[in-house]
Formats: sequence, C-alpha cells, structure tokens
Amino acid sequence: MKYFIDRLQQKIEAKDSRICVGLDPHLELIPENVLAPELLNDLEANQKEIAAAVLKYNQNLLDAVADMTAVVKPQMAFYEKLGVPGMEALWQTMAYAKSKGLLVLLDGKRNDIGSTAGAYAEAYLENKKIEIDSITINPYLGRDGVLPFLENKEKGAFALLRTSNPSAVDIQDLKLDDGRTVYQAVGNFLQELGRDYIGDCGYSNLAAVVGATYPKELKEIRAQLDSVFFLIPGFGAQGGGAADIKAGFDSEGRGAVVNSSRGINFAYRKDEYAHFGADNYAKAARAAAEKMKNEINEVIK
Amino acid sequence: MKYFIDRLQQKIEAKDSRICVGLDPHLELIPENVLAPELLNDLEANQKEIAAAVLKYNQNLLDAVADMTAVVKPQMAFYEKLGVPGMEALWQTMAYAKSKGLLVLLDGKRNDIGSTAGAYAEAYLENKKIEIDSITINPYLGRDGVLPFLENKEKGAFALLRTSNPSAVDIQDLKLDDGRTVYQAVGNFLQELGRDYIGDCGYSNLAAVVGATYPKELKEIRAQLDSVFFLIPGFGAQGGGAADIKAGFDSEGRGAVVNSSRGINFAYRKDEYAHFGADNYAKAARAAAEKMKNEINEVIK
Repeated sequence: MKYFIDRLQQKIEAKDSRICVGLDPHLELIPENVLAPELLNDLEANQKEIAAAVLKYNQNLLDAVADMTAVVKPQMAFYEKLGVPGMEALWQTMAYAKSKGLLVLLDGKRNDIGSTAGAYAEAYLENKKIEIDSITINPYLGRDGVLPFLENKEKGAFALLRTSNPSAVDIQDLKLDDGRTVYQAVGNFLQELGRDYIGDCGYSNLAAVVGATYPKELKEIRAQLDSVFFLIPGFGAQGGGAADIKAGFDSEGRGAVVNSSRGINFAYRKDEYAHFGADNYAKAARAAAEKMKNEINEVIK
Repeated sequence: MKYFIDRLQQKIEAKDSRICVGLDPHLELIPENVLAPELLNDLEANQKEIAAAVLKYNQNLLDAVADMTAVVKPQMAFYEKLGVPGMEALWQTMAYAKSKGLLVLLDGKRNDIGSTAGAYAEAYLENKKIEIDSITINPYLGRDGVLPFLENKEKGAFALLRTSNPSAVDIQDLKLDDGRTVYQAVGNFLQELGRDYIGDCGYSNLAAVVGATYPKELKEIRAQLDSVFFLIPGFGAQGGGAADIKAGFDSEGRGAVVNSSRGINFAYRKDEYAHFGADNYAKAARAAAEKMKNEINEVIK
C-alpha cells in the first residue's frame, strides 16, 4: 500500500517534471481537422461526434506529453457539457492516461455533506476498472465533506484554498477576527485535517489548490503549511509565470505541481508555436510542455 | 420570458406545496423487486442494470408525488456513482420530471472559475432537449463562479449559504472582524449579487441553500435577506422538523421550499409507512410527501 502523495512525488522526481497538464477541451479551439466546426452549431444533436473528436484530441495530446508530465488533470465541466457521450469521453480519456502510466487528477471540485461526499468518493476514487488517483474538492462544507475522499490512502484530494480567478477575493479574502483571512483559516484547517494522511515524503494526501496568479499569497501560504502539497493553477493563459510559482515549492523543489491547460492544449494558437500549424497541435503542445517544465526546473534549482 | 423564480413561486402556489422532493437513489435502500441486491456486488460490471433500476424507481416515485410537489432535486453524486449509465439515468429522470410538469433543481454544487463555470452553466442550464430549470452551486470562488449561472433569466441557481451537515461550522461559522460570520457574509454577498435578477415575486433567481437543522441561524438569515429565496434541506432524515423551518418563510408563507430526500424516497422503511410494504414504496412516498406538505402548510399559515 503506497500513499497517493508518495506516488505523486516519486513520479514527479522520476520524470524531473513539476508540471500538470490540464485537459480542458474548449471546443471552439480544437483544430478543424479533428473537430468539424459545423458540428458545434447543434451541440445536443452532435454530442456523440463531438465527444469522439474530444477523445481523439486528448489521446494525441497524451501521446505527445506523456513522458513530460507526472499527472494530468481533466476539467469535468468541458466533458459534462457534452452530456452522456461527454462523460464517456472523460472516462476513456482517463483510462488512456492511466495506460500511459500517468496519474489522474480529476478536476470536478465536488463538495457535499457526509453521505453524499461518500457517494462522490466512491464514484471516482473507488472505480475498480479505471483507477483515478485523485480529485479536486471544495472545503466550504467542512470536514465531513472532505474526509470521505481520504479514506483510501492510495488516493488523494486537492481542496480549494486560494483560487486563481479575479473574484477569489470576494469570500476567500474576508478578514477574520483573529487576523487571519478566510483562505488562511482554510489552509490551517486543511493542514490539521490532513495530519493523519501524511506519507513518507512528508506531505499529506490532503493537498490544496493555490493559484499562481497571487504570488504573494502563495509564498505566505507555503510558509504556513509545511505538510500540504499544492496544485498551482493559473500558469500561462491566466497570467502566472515561472518566477511567480517558485514560492509554492519547498527548499528542495518538492511539494507542488504547476498546472497549465489552455497554454499547452492550444499552444498551436500562440505565435511562438504557430509554425507547427493546427494539424500538429500535439507537437506544439509538447514543445510548450517542455518549455514550461524547464522554466520551472530552472527557477526552483 | 419569465424569471425562473417567478415560475417556481407560482408553481408552489398553484400546488399549495412548499416541498421539494429529493431524488437520491441510495442503492442499498431500493426494494429488491426493483433492484436485485446481488447486482451491487459488482457495481462496475452491473452499471447498466443498476442504472435502469434507478430510472424505474425514480419514474414510479415521480408518478406518485408529481401532483404534490412543484420541484424535484436529483442529487448528482448518486448517479455519477454509476458511471456513464448513471448519467444517462439522471438525464432520463430529469426528462421524465419535466414531462410531468415539474421544475428540476439539479443538485451538483458545481463551482469553478469564470470560463469553467460558464461551461457548467452551458452543460446544464442551456441544454435544448431537456430544459433543466436550476442548479446548486458553491460560492467559495466568488462572483465569477456565480454569475455565469444567472445569465439566462429563465433559469436559477441555489448557492450554498449555511449547509445542514454537522461540520458546516468548520468554515461557515468562522467569525469575521466586522462581527459577522462567514455564512452571514456569504448571505450578504449573495443578496447583493442577486439584485439584478429579481423577479415579479420579489425574490431573486440567485437563491440560497440554508439547512433546516440550524433553526436559529435560519431565522436570523431570513431576517437579513429579504430578496433571497431559500432551499431548506435537512428535513426528516437529517433531523429538522416543520417547526424548525417556519422561520425560513416570509410572513406570507413565500420565499422558500423545504427538501426531503430519504424521508420520502424510502418512506416505506419507516414504521409509520411500513404497512405499505416494499413493493408499494411509491405509495409510501406519496403518503410521506403529503404529510410533509400538510405539516409545512400548517406551521406557515
């Protein structure tokens, strides 16, 4: 029995890569040779064909970046948008990622009261055919919405702490009467809750999501939480750069992965990689992933 | 064009029923004549058969309670647990509820940053074949995680404010430096955000979830938020009674619906309704729904 967090940290070190490749199929950005744009005129009628294109798109991406990343993160919304066929494409994408030896972090931000949180944990972390490794969750409901996701020590959960979006401040930055912000209190809460789930690497199976777009907060949160592993989204398309995320790692360059979704998935649309052309989107994605991997390794070493 | 919240309030008044029937198919509680228990020994292998049983179970329930309720609330976790066939059963359940003239509140507690929240809104509130009326959401990400669900004024969103579970206190009850709790601040935030979406009935398409299990808090929140409609879960199985929820309604008995899931779905298991027998679970559910409807009407009149 190996703790999820140890499996993750080891795979990161084996590949010397601290990136997480998001799999967010924005339909209107998928090249025409994979997804015929006219199918998008009637999403409901064409769910099956579009979902098949999404799966093909993802498989090509995974082939291109599999040796470059330890973990991939499909964002459920983009699959749920395609109804039942979309969920089918999601499961097949995850199965394909697993067949490539990658860890899967399913980004669904599930949250509910105890018995229902248990149903979600069972739905995604206890599937016997496709062993999903971890899931994102929302901590607003407190511990009974979190603990069901930690019952199986081979699996992990990433709870929202400080998100990468502009309106993260609305609730997360409210000031408490003890001087902390809400997100700092959530951080302390997650660290305490995760103490019973710490692996050999010193980090807990209860990890946290801290956006790259708020480097000051990231630094301060890292200093406070020494056993909480971070997923750092917001790199690339959302504006965070390699220097911004340095503070999310510990002094040995451990304890975090940095996610990029659009910046890798649709790299072919950026000037820098336009020479690959839309048909070679997977090669462009590989180049972008390699650059990101190297940039991060550079700043943390 | 009619505001979601006006459609809801009118249907409640037309049926003189302030209940919401949850559709939470706890598999181990479904009677043997609908779902053969041995199928549960291998959930993954038997997803299709189990999902078919769930759909049948729900259709019978809906037939039995359709004239007794304005709105039904399927909890996604229980369907997602059955993988792709489960999602199929969910969509078919929602289509069936719509064919019976019921409003659907999809309980998925979705939450994400702006563009992804938009994808969820599109996935569930913009489906052209099955017109889902509303969805539950989590407010922790702030306004850009909420507003995409309000773009279509014919649809609504129910944001978590004070949940019904024991550990609701962990984050929601933290004290702010201005004397409010986090949940009170979330309440004020939701009321402000919802001001642009107020229908003729005086309530907003941005509604809130406030548990029946905390009657003191419910009363205080109602007093503060005069344009926020409430979904009140936790009635019945979770311990809330009719007297507890009275304070959630306004002085005219408007502005809220009270949810019961297990208490109605599996009423046949309670002593009170055991005489119906497991085969007549739908009749037992109808009796429980009628009793709940009358009890609530009693206390608010």
